[in-house]
Amino acid sequence: MAKKYKILVSNDDGIYSEGIIALREAMSELGEVYVYAPHKQQSAVGHAITTHLPLRVNPYYMNGDFFGYAVTGTPADCVKLAVTTHMKEKPDLIVSGINHGSNAAINVIYSGTVSAATEGTILGIPSIAFSLTTYVDFDFTYSKKVAKIIASAVLKNGIPPGVLLNVNIPPVPEEQIKGIKVTKQGKSRWNDYFEKRVDPQNREYYWLTGQMNNIEDDEDSDIKAIQQNYVSVTPIQFDLTAYEFLETLKKWEFK
Amino acid sequence: MAKKYKILVSNDDGIYSEGIIALREAMSELGEVYVYAPHKQQSAVGHAITTHLPLRVNPYYMNGDFFGYAVTGTPADCVKLAVTTHMKEKPDLIVSGINHGSNAAINVIYSGTVSAATEGTILGIPSIAFSLTTYVDFDFTYSKKVAKIIASAVLKNGIPPGVLLNVNIPPVPEEQIKGIKVTKQGKSRWNDYFEKRVDPQNREYYWLTGQMNNIEDDEDSDIKAIQQNYVSVTPIQFDLTAYEFLETLKKWEFK
Repeated sequence: MAKKYKILVSNDDGIYSEGIIALREAMSELGEVYVYAPHKQQSAVGHAITTHLPLRVNPYYMNGDFFGYAVTGTPADCVKLAVTTHMKEKPDLIVSGINHGSNAAINVIYSGTVSAATEGTILGIPSIAFSLTTYVDFDFTYSKKVAKIIASAVLKNGIPPGVLLNVNIPPVPEEQIKGIKVTKQGKSRWNDYFEKRVDPQNREYYWLTGQMNNIEDDEDSDIKAIQQNYVSVTPIQFDLTAYEFLETLKKWEFK
Repeated sequence: MAKKYKILVSNDDGIYSEGIIALREAMSELGEVYVYAPHKQQSAVGHAITTHLPLRVNPYYMNGDFFGYAVTGTPADCVKLAVTTHMKEKPDLIVSGINHGSNAAINVIYSGTVSAATEGTILGIPSIAFSLTTYVDFDFTYSKKVAKIIASAVLKNGIPPGVLLNVNIPPVPEEQIKGIKVTKQGKSRWNDYFEKRVDPQNREYYWLTGQMNNIEDDEDSDIKAIQQNYVSVTPIQFDLTAYEFLETLKKWEFK
């Protein structure tokens, strides 16, 4: 290999999760791997950062070997701390995952996995979020292979500033995978609500529950691709400006 | 008034903050106001939602009068819980703020204030985030006036599905305000890092610090508008697809 790439690995499921072990293994075939990940589960934290508390950074060992750094913060904290402060040199690539569960459609907004990659992009480094779209029965064999393929493509081609890739992998054996498909963020949302319950002290509490409301009709959406056993690769950005509505809004009278 | 609008008010600074008191007052001139806000400060939480813990919803009184509901969750939780579960009817409008501090440029990504309005938009309700761009010396007199003007315009004109408004108000007296300007999300980012310190037990910790790195050259950006004493109104969206890069990405070979 001509150049030894430096690859930063993070996630939101915590440094001990199966998904990050798989991703670290896959990336070690492409370069030198640095792990900075939350010391505990951080799902659905969105792009939270910690400003009101100090962070601890502790070396984390697995089976006696140094695995990486466990950070007492969010996924975005991990990436920000690694890149701006803790690593001696900036990484060439940042990968986040492999998440246990889908980050397609509206899940992008809530995702800690995606936020780690978004923070990487904000810091000017090519970044990718990987998710395996199941909450049960993880087999990361094919996910590792596809993570390596997509990371190689990013290292080779580069991605424009302000853009990251959000990859979702169907939870099926490799022989059932139809291919890798470039997609748009789907329109499906959660049909959710809070279940009202009563605790043993007779006080009310509310617990979030619900299901994904699948309303996709666009064949190019991430959700459709996954349903058809394609790996979806959606380019996303952190410029949220709704450009299509700008000109209409400029005509409004504010009075 | 022909119709009595139902207006949901939330924020990220907490239900006791000056900004939400100001926004509640301003909205009460337009309709019936319902407050669901975090029971404590939730700045920089991004679009976090609480799935692993139950939420409590407690009535909150101010000077002996019912003010609204204090929710033990994030801004997105407050809006989701109010709209899907707790309110008898869906609101006509959701407003979030008035935040103590800027939510222009990259701050949009980290903002709890914006996430409350984003959640409203995901739920299909016109939503607006308001911020006063100072961390000190709050005077919400003009902010209240402008919140009413912009909320009225949204109630009159509507906004397209999937779009919300992100409003930033310069912290100057009304006579210095040049007007209301429709803008794009600015490109300025934080030039931040973690300060390494040692605690009284001689253990290392890291604390986030840094400054906004102002790199705007676009006169239509929110940051430029605020610097020139305009109120900035940026339409933003939760479809993060980087459409401009889609076609290029489709030409990549994944192997």
